[in-house]
Amino acid sequence: MPEVETITYPHEKLSEFSKLTFQHFGIPEKEAELASEVLSMSDLRGIDSHGVARLHTYFDMLEKERINPVPKIKIVRESASTATVDGDNGLGLVVGPKANEIAMNKAQEVGSGWVSVRNTNHYGIAGYYVIKALERDLIGWSMTNTTKLVAPLWGAERMLGTNPIAVAFPGKKEPPIIIDLATCAAAYGKIEIAHRKEQMIPEGWAIDSEGNNTNDPDKMINGGALLPLGSDREKGGHKGYGLAVMVDFLCAVLSGANWGPFTPPFALQQEIPKRSVGKGIGHFFGAMKIDAFIDPDEFKTQTDDYIQTLRATSPAPGTDGPIIPGDPEREAESIRSKQGIPLVLPVVEELRDISKRTGIPFD
Amino acid sequence: MPEVETITYPHEKLSEFSKLTFQHFGIPEKEAELASEVLSMSDLRGIDSHGVARLHTYFDMLEKERINPVPKIKIVRESASTATVDGDNGLGLVVGPKANEIAMNKAQEVGSGWVSVRNTNHYGIAGYYVIKALERDLIGWSMTNTTKLVAPLWGAERMLGTNPIAVAFPGKKEPPIIIDLATCAAAYGKIEIAHRKEQMIPEGWAIDSEGNNTNDPDKMINGGALLPLGSDREKGGHKGYGLAVMVDFLCAVLSGANWGPFTPPFALQQEIPKRSVGKGIGHFFGAMKIDAFIDPDEFKTQTDDYIQTLRATSPAPGTDGPIIPGDPEREAESIRSKQGIPLVLPVVEELRDISKRTGIPFD
Repeated sequence: MPEVETITYPHEKLSEFSKLTFQHFGIPEKEAELASEVLSMSDLRGIDSHGVARLHTYFDMLEKERINPVPKIKIVRESASTATVDGDNGLGLVVGPKANEIAMNKAQEVGSGWVSVRNTNHYGIAGYYVIKALERDLIGWSMTNTTKLVAPLWGAERMLGTNPIAVAFPGKKEPPIIIDLATCAAAYGKIEIAHRKEQMIPEGWAIDSEGNNTNDPDKMINGGALLPLGSDREKGGHKGYGLAVMVDFLCAVLSGANWGPFTPPFALQQEIPKRSVGKGIGHFFGAMKIDAFIDPDEFKTQTDDYIQTLRATSPAPGTDGPIIPGDPEREAESIRSKQGIPLVLPVVEELRDISKRTGIPFD
Repeated sequence: MPEVETITYPHEKLSEFSKLTFQHFGIPEKEAELASEVLSMSDLRGIDSHGVARLHTYFDMLEKERINPVPKIKIVRESASTATVDGDNGLGLVVGPKANEIAMNKAQEVGSGWVSVRNTNHYGIAGYYVIKALERDLIGWSMTNTTKLVAPLWGAERMLGTNPIAVAFPGKKEPPIIIDLATCAAAYGKIEIAHRKEQMIPEGWAIDSEGNNTNDPDKMINGGALLPLGSDREKGGHKGYGLAVMVDFLCAVLSGANWGPFTPPFALQQEIPKRSVGKGIGHFFGAMKIDAFIDPDEFKTQTDDYIQTLRATSPAPGTDGPIIPGDPEREAESIRSKQGIPLVLPVVEELRDISKRTGIPFD
């Protein structure tokens, strides 16, 4: 199997192209910049699936007027430490950062801030939001619900999204610990890669349309489902399922967004759910002021100790030992910020298509 | 293999015995009542490992003066929506409920309350605390760190606790959704059961003292470790590891308790860590006022719809379909509150031993 061919672009160039694409639809410059910053961070951190690889999807949704380019984002209910935000069907890449900002501001005022968001769309990587919190010495939380892809344990069909959770803790001399995980066993992107390479997938990732375990990626793609983290009852599949439900409640039931199988899709070609039980998809952001709990310097000193302690764990055979959550993404960022972002040819073609249809230069 | 022999006791009787045992050490009546309520809920809900089966452990720790029977529990740092509590080395079964109360009161005042607790001990089942929040129309969160038992992904030794997370959401006509999960693949109790029955354990539960996967429960028990939820890299073991670290940070690094491999044991026979990096173990409680986000009646109506939707999922072959988190425990409670709590003989023997040594009647 040959390596996949890629073309490498400086991240600034991709970021500028994304920004102009968003502006093309009348999204104000500052908001277009915000949205392109979220995509750019994803590409820099090596999460290729959530960066400019998704720009054409956003383009489609904006072009078909499925996303509002000039939303009036507003707080619909509020307390000193909480808020419910209506994103007015705006880009999640704009609604998300603004709602996160509300959570962070509340944390600085009353110790913590918690914001549930409805009527929004796909918000990029969960990790972006907690990294923004780190910049303000806050512990950030970020969750979103997503289109159905995952079966609840003992279910035979897609009912839940991959519903990620991200949280981050700052270090002093050590880099921050950045935890960012989807609540399913394996990402849908891995199923697609196996499909393209005509390879089998491991046990524990997916079921077919009848609910049987499958090693065939095509059987998952064609009406099957991903399995929750833990995979089966024996290995704790009820736990991943529980976590996915938790995220769905905090993001959607709490805000008045659609949940479970009724969560709208983020791409045109995906099926629109038959019922609507709320508005758009939902996010949940939290921020906690470290200083409200403990001296921040003491906290960070302990974080450094924690990281060094974990790194000193005796390694399992055939490994270099545990890594710290966030390490792989930071390593990708340090390379890609200098060397650029490698894009596979289908993504390059998509960007060229946007260029052709908008007149924004790209080569 | 014969079924395990049990003797059944009314839960009120066990609860009274626990209360008197705690009072025997000078714990004030109200606090002894609180502690026995936590144990009793565990027994009623079918979580045998965390109920009176642990009373002898608490007895030992109190007798050896490793736990303070009359702690001065105090808030050491506070903001409108947060607090850090020092449990003065009291029973976790007393410190936990009191700290949870602080979180709930703050939620009622400013929309949410978040309390990190240090210098405390084992607090019973995580679920107890979120059930208390439900009684006040709050969404409760509960976490605790625990003695090391779990290896981080790619580690060959115990570095983290089983660090549970519980969250609950109220329904209207439907019962609440109660999510309560340890962040490891399988409970240590299951390893012990396999050991007693001389059975092998499934792949994905544990490693031996060299860090190799093992199916032998004895190899886990003798210096091996449990695996995090997700088990291995392929099935998301880095995710369970990340969640365990998250719980440890919120409970211990944020409060100034011991974390990771330095978390003190809850039983006498367990090894005392070589280093101390804080005070006691740590808990984390959260409470969110539903009314601060959305009309509570609307929320509960949606919860009912959510539950009915999940129950209508087409079932995987050989199953009755997905269950709702909290279902098994509620079913156990409805049976046991009428029929009593079945205790295995070794637990009965432990209670008789307490009776003999304290003079509190038990038969």
